[in-house]
Order: sequence, then C-alpha cells, then structure tokens
Amino acid sequence: MTDRIGGLPDRIRVGIVGYGNLGRGVETSIGLNPDLELVGVFSRRDPASVETLRPETPVYALDDIASFADRVDVLVLCGGSKSDLPEQTPLLAKQFTVVDSFDTHAKVPEHFAAVDAAAQAGDNVAIISTGWDPGLFSLNRLFGEAILPQGETYTFWGRGLSQGHSDALRRIAGVAGAVQYTLPSETAIERVRAGENPELSTREKHVRECFVVLEDGADAEAIREEIVTMPDYFEPYDTNVHFISADELARDHAGMPHGGFVIRSGETSPGVSQTIEYRLALDSNPEFTSSVLVAYARAAARLAARGERGALTPFDVAPGLLSPKSPEQLRAELL
Amino acid sequence: MTDRIGGLPDRIRVGIVGYGNLGRGVETSIGLNPDLELVGVFSRRDPASVETLRPETPVYALDDIASFADRVDVLVLCGGSKSDLPEQTPLLAKQFTVVDSFDTHAKVPEHFAAVDAAAQAGDNVAIISTGWDPGLFSLNRLFGEAILPQGETYTFWGRGLSQGHSDALRRIAGVAGAVQYTLPSETAIERVRAGENPELSTREKHVRECFVVLEDGADAEAIREEIVTMPDYFEPYDTNVHFISADELARDHAGMPHGGFVIRSGETSPGVSQTIEYRLALDSNPEFTSSVLVAYARAAARLAARGERGALTPFDVAPGLLSPKSPEQLRAELL
Repeated sequence: MTDRIGGLPDRIRVGIVGYGNLGRGVETSIGLNPDLELVGVFSRRDPASVETLRPETPVYALDDIASFADRVDVLVLCGGSKSDLPEQTPLLAKQFTVVDSFDTHAKVPEHFAAVDAAAQAGDNVAIISTGWDPGLFSLNRLFGEAILPQGETYTFWGRGLSQGHSDALRRIAGVAGAVQYTLPSETAIERVRAGENPELSTREKHVRECFVVLEDGADAEAIREEIVTMPDYFEPYDTNVHFISADELARDHAGMPHGGFVIRSGETSPGVSQTIEYRLALDSNPEFTSSVLVAYARAAARLAARGERGALTPFDVAPGLLSPKSPEQLRAELL
Repeated sequence: MTDRIGGLPDRIRVGIVGYGNLGRGVETSIGLNPDLELVGVFSRRDPASVETLRPETPVYALDDIASFADRVDVLVLCGGSKSDLPEQTPLLAKQFTVVDSFDTHAKVPEHFAAVDAAAQAGDNVAIISTGWDPGLFSLNRLFGEAILPQGETYTFWGRGLSQGHSDALRRIAGVAGAVQYTLPSETAIERVRAGENPELSTREKHVRECFVVLEDGADAEAIREEIVTMPDYFEPYDTNVHFISADELARDHAGMPHGGFVIRSGETSPGVSQTIEYRLALDSNPEFTSSVLVAYARAAARLAARGERGALTPFDVAPGLLSPKSPEQLRAELL
C-alpha cells in the first residue's frame, strides 16, 4: 500500500471557495501545513472588496474558476449547508476535486447522490461531510458500533455555537444577525454516564438557544414561528428564541466555542462492560472544522492522483491519507 | 465506492489461531456478529485437550491448517507478540488472509516488512497491529496530528493489566504465573490537563507493577533483574516487581481491566486552543482487543475479495469496511 501516491506536485495546490469564518479558517490552516499551497480565495463578491487575513492571499471571482482547472489540485468548499453547498458541491465537482463539510444529517444521502453523479461525470473525487459532526463524530459512531455491536451510542453537543444553525437563522428574511447555541441536557448526560443505556428522544438530549437581531420593521412573532418550525434544524428540538440588539450580539456573542462527545457503551460478554468516549473541546468551531477540511483536502488530492473517482465520505477514506507523513513514518512513529 | 465488495460468501468464514484469552474473546465476539461464521479454533495443543467456551466450536490441529485454505476467508491470529506472532503472521499470511494485534511498538516496521513480503508472495491481505494500542489509540494519534499540526499528543494507559507485558513475564524461565499492571502518573496527567504541554519522558508518564509467582527453586533476584532490564517491555519504565503466591494471584488478580486515553491539544491560531480526547474504560482488555480484531477481520476479508494484496495497518483501512452495514446504510444512519 506504499508508494501509490503519484501524480501530485511537491506541494498540493488548494483553492478556497467562499470566504466567511470557514474560509478564513482554511486560509489559516493551510499556513500550518507546509505540504499545502494556497492558490487563492474564490468569491462571489467583488474580489477587490474581500479582505483576507493574509494580505498576500489572492482573491478571484468565483465566475472565473474554470480557468484554474490546471492550477488547483483540490478546492475546499466553505459555503453553508442550507443553500450554498447543495448547489456548489455538484457544480464544482464536475470540474475539480473538492471537499465540503455539508452538515445537514437528514439530507446526506441526497447530497451524496448529486455530488457522486457530478464527480463521476467530471472524473474527479469529492469528499463530502468532513468536519466534526458529521465527520469525526460520525467516524466514532461507526467504530463504536462495529467494535461493540451489543451496546448503545450517544452523541451530545455543546455548550457551543453551531455555525450551520446560525447560518440558517441568518438566512431568514427580517433577521439582521443571529447566533445559535446548543446545550446538552445535564440530566441526560448523567443517565448515560451511570450506565443506564437510556432511550433518549432528540428533544430530551439537547436544547437550542437562538439569539436574534431583527431588521427594522420585522415581525418578531412570525420569525420566531419560522425558526421553531424549521424542519431538521429546529423543529425536532426545544428551541428558545431571544431577540437582542445588534450591540448585545457584538458584545456578548463574538466567540465561537463548541464541543461535545460521542459515547459508545456496550458489553462483550454478560456483565463485561466496555466504554469508548470521544470528546472535543473547541475554542473555535470554524477554525477546527477548517482544520478537518484541510486534512481531508490532502486526502482528496491523493485519492484523485491515484485514480479514485466519485463521491466519498470520511467512512471511505483510509486515515493515513490525512497525514502529510509517509506510510513508513506513520508506522514507525504513530502505530 | 459502493458495490465494490464482491467475491465473499453470505457470511465471512473466520478461523481462530491460538486459544488463550484473546482466542476466547474472538470466539465470543464472532457470536455477536451475525455476518461472521466461526470455522473453528486452530491450536498447537492436542485438539481433544482444548475446551472451548462454546461446546459446538470445532478445534483442529494447527498443523492441519493448510487443508482449510478453501474453507476460511480470514484467520484471526491470537498469539502473543513476543514470540508467536513474529513467526506465525508471516507464515500464515502466505496461505491465508490474516489479522493480528502485534503490539511491540518498536518492532512494528520489522514485523510489517516480514508480513508484507509473505502476504504479497501468497496473494493475501494481512492487517497487523489492530487492537487498541497499537490500533485505535494509533488512529487517534494520527487524526490528532493531521488535524492539529501545531500541538502535542499524549497517551496514558491504565490503571490496567497489560496482556502483552504479562505474557512477556510468563515466558521467563522460573516464572509460574504473573500479571503486570500499568499505572498512569497522576502528576503527569494533571500537567497535561492544565494545558502545560509538558515534555514528559516515558519514565515520568507511567509506572509498571509486576506480580510474579515463582516456580519452586527459582532465583527471585535473577528474575527481577531479567524483568527490569527487558528491552522495550520494562527497561524504559520504573518497574516494581512483587513476588506473590499462586493463591494470591488467583484471588486478587483474576480480572483484566484496562483503559487509558490519547489527548491531542493544539492551537489553530494564536490563543485559540482545541482539544481532542479519546478514552477507553475496559472491564476486559482481551475481550475488547478481540472485538477490534474481529472488526478488522471483516475488513481484511472484504479487502482481499476486492483484490487488495500485502500488509496493511489500521492507518490503511477505510473505516466503513469495519462495519457490517452497507455504505448507503452508514451514510443514512451514522454520518
């Protein structure tokens, strides 16, 4: 399985599509990975209006991206899952090897099918739903279940700000700004830790708290109703909506912490209990998600270079491909 | 990436080589996985003398294993890393697809090379060093480093009984029975949790405690010296050796708990700290290791059926291959 990665330049050339928190995180992360080279940011905005964290980062119009086909090994797609990625990932997978962090769990099969068709047609690789949930948390759910088939898996999030859900709030007409925090239910966590293997409904496990700034003249009650009934995002949870001022939003809600854990608890024989626990404690959710995207960008470029085609998820990617180290180094240093 | 697993019977046919704690654990684990079928146990002992946990499990002489080439899809090798696996894995990889849990970290490159040559020659797949360390812990070291390139990784074990190290003790001439517990240093853990990113020597992180029953007439001091100077296993640690009676061993040291954690702590930008923590709390180390071996046996049989060849480690195996579920199911249920 060694020496199969050929056809790549010395440094993998990466493009960033979309320049919000995630795009900025990818820009920073590429700077920490000497085997990667940033070709530039591709934006729907006027390139002259985009201020990058690093002044040397080139910014191009997204409309011109086709002309970069020979200058980019992999694109990291940094749009939102609600409306950007369902369009952009299939569109760009026809022309480029891409990675995204599509995070609407219920729509993964649909997104996968659309991206797979595009990537197959374009002879490219597309890794979707990297990031940490879906992504790293999904991997831990899979490992837990495969190793301890007789048991239960629990995922808890927070307390943390959810990018995808905040994004969904901000897209509602009449909303000027918003953040959403997810809180795990303390009661639920205690029952899991006590080894009760409880049946917990979605509603029992987490609460969603929304802090929303209204545009002038917006109808607060209509917006509250639109939020709490939004399918997949808010409808399955107890959701509290707080209306605050723009000043309060800027003052009290500037950080983007997150975290959570996946616990698999099971028995390998009667009375013999085994527990696997995976936890993330993140100062910045977008910077962490970006770091995961960048590791999967490396894997995507390598898979494309060795002739793989079509859509993949983290389930399909051998972990060694995420590391800049050679298989020999990995075995000697990390196994 | 779907529909690539062909050429396997409805149930994957598994053979167990070696019938100690690990072999018994594999026998039990196969019973929890309906897509796997146990062909039998292969032992160096007289088959009539081997009492299996399930009376219906057939036992065969290891010498006759060649005649099972068409009746076994994958062998799970359950010998010890000190002397069994370095011989058995290359030998059997010439004839069968195999998995082992070789756990002498320092000798992994050597073992990999020998197994790879044999598996390539025999046109088979061999996944080495599954289990949890090496294995699951190695994977978490790799993910941590790939995602947070600027940071430190810490692995702590215990308090737990180490199979490999107990096995090494038992092989010393004059030792009638023995167990070895690994204890993490509380001071070291506290420094890591406080975010100090300390430099810790092997000796500062863990202590090894050995409880040894001597054979009649054995020289206690010579055996103590042989233990504490044993390379890789005990020499790099502060090792305490306690001599106890056979009755004490049976009464106080029958359980086989273990566990530990891998922590990666790093910064994605100045002052922005991110922490990934992976923990195992195991009532039975061999039963858990066996469960990991069995999941990788499934992966090995699938990789062999799709035409892969040679030695692999968990770094080379796409996680989805560990699960009995189809890629479609995994995406819909776990992503």
